[in-house]
Amino acid sequence: MSGWIAIAGLGPGDEALVTPEVTAALAEATDVVGYIPYVARIAPREGLTLHPSDNRVERQRAAHALEMAAAGRRVVVVSSGDPGIFAMAAAVFEALEAGPDDWRALDIRVLPGITAMLAASARAGAPLGHDFCAINLSDNLKPWALVERRLRLAVEADFAIALYNPRSKARPEGFARALDLLRDASGDDRPVLFARAVSTPEEALRIVPLSQATPDMADMRTVVIIGSSLTRIIPREGAPILYTPRSAP
Amino acid sequence: MSGWIAIAGLGPGDEALVTPEVTAALAEATDVVGYIPYVARIAPREGLTLHPSDNRVERQRAAHALEMAAAGRRVVVVSSGDPGIFAMAAAVFEALEAGPDDWRALDIRVLPGITAMLAASARAGAPLGHDFCAINLSDNLKPWALVERRLRLAVEADFAIALYNPRSKARPEGFARALDLLRDASGDDRPVLFARAVSTPEEALRIVPLSQATPDMADMRTVVIIGSSLTRIIPREGAPILYTPRSAP
Repeated sequence: MSGWIAIAGLGPGDEALVTPEVTAALAEATDVVGYIPYVARIAPREGLTLHPSDNRVERQRAAHALEMAAAGRRVVVVSSGDPGIFAMAAAVFEALEAGPDDWRALDIRVLPGITAMLAASARAGAPLGHDFCAINLSDNLKPWALVERRLRLAVEADFAIALYNPRSKARPEGFARALDLLRDASGDDRPVLFARAVSTPEEALRIVPLSQATPDMADMRTVVIIGSSLTRIIPREGAPILYTPRSAP
Repeated sequence: MSGWIAIAGLGPGDEALVTPEVTAALAEATDVVGYIPYVARIAPREGLTLHPSDNRVERQRAAHALEMAAAGRRVVVVSSGDPGIFAMAAAVFEALEAGPDDWRALDIRVLPGITAMLAASARAGAPLGHDFCAINLSDNLKPWALVERRLRLAVEADFAIALYNPRSKARPEGFARALDLLRDASGDDRPVLFARAVSTPEEALRIVPLSQATPDMADMRTVVIIGSSLTRIIPREGAPILYTPRSAP
């Protein structure tokens, strides 16, 4: 039996958003590795060992997964959303590049998933219907000055902007500074979507003008989408539709 | 029987990348509307009418779908990839906003899918593992000067850049100009991924340094990902791994 490693995206939460490709890989796995709440989504079964770990140990987790695959296990590394978007795939490749040469011969696959901004956008309408960017607001792995620089340039480019990891206990002030910067840079009152835990029982969506956006509207389970200058709201009974038209003048 | 409309993403091509949510909506539909090659992916069955249409008629197609839903049909508008990323969702909302008031009361949902850049990124490694942007290179609906401006700012922000619709017969010169601009603006020889028809039998991946990228490497079925300054290649036997580390200095 030869081992393999699949780095798989579980989507935002609803099992109806997990691709059949990922479901098939999980059915063949001997080991599942990942952050505690994501591993908790995998049903236990005989022959499957679950390896939940805390966050901020991505690199060690990645090395553990590669070691097991090299030892002949069939390993699925799970992320929520898509594994390639601010998730485990890059961490696994960092570990692979720094690790022993024989890891490069491993059977290694990345299985895409519905990343948070796609799920949030779909629920609200189509705010990412024109050019956009995605920025991880966490400054664990990059200087805050770079985050601010990217936000300014993104507004100048008139991208819609998806913000991942807008807020954590470790850095409560960053998101407040980001909102101030976005207000200054945009000079208008474009709509902002706060989409929390989309497709789960805790789902909550809120659309507010940028002038009324406050840091407490986001937590660690929220993705935030700042509209471009062209993003529009269609009012109707119930939730409005938020979308960015395909055309730009 | 009351009608509804679902704007659904079929993913990049492989049926194993269609979410169960989309499969369920298709199973309940009375009508499927979309661009000819996407509607061709839907198996005919009794009680289901297929409405394939040519491209460049997105707005009329959207209005037709809304009319049918208002008349009590259960309509799925299909896009490849994700419907919210350079696809039909924005077109439907444009038609809805311009249409009769009663369309706003329709049961309307967007069902996300695996968009081309996620599929391409997964196949190559994790080039979108750090901050990135997505730009539609088509200038059908925006001036080319805006495309160039966004490319310049994206390089300045050091985003990885996913380019949708890099090339079409109608504007063969645009992509060549984009590559020239990217070479000038980046000042380095970062890797470029050309990912064609990912997950289909016609899949072809190619990674070249920006200096060697040429317009003929892309066609209408290709998504192009330009690395950031930090995007790396892990050489190995067979296809190399392309990824962008999580950290930036």
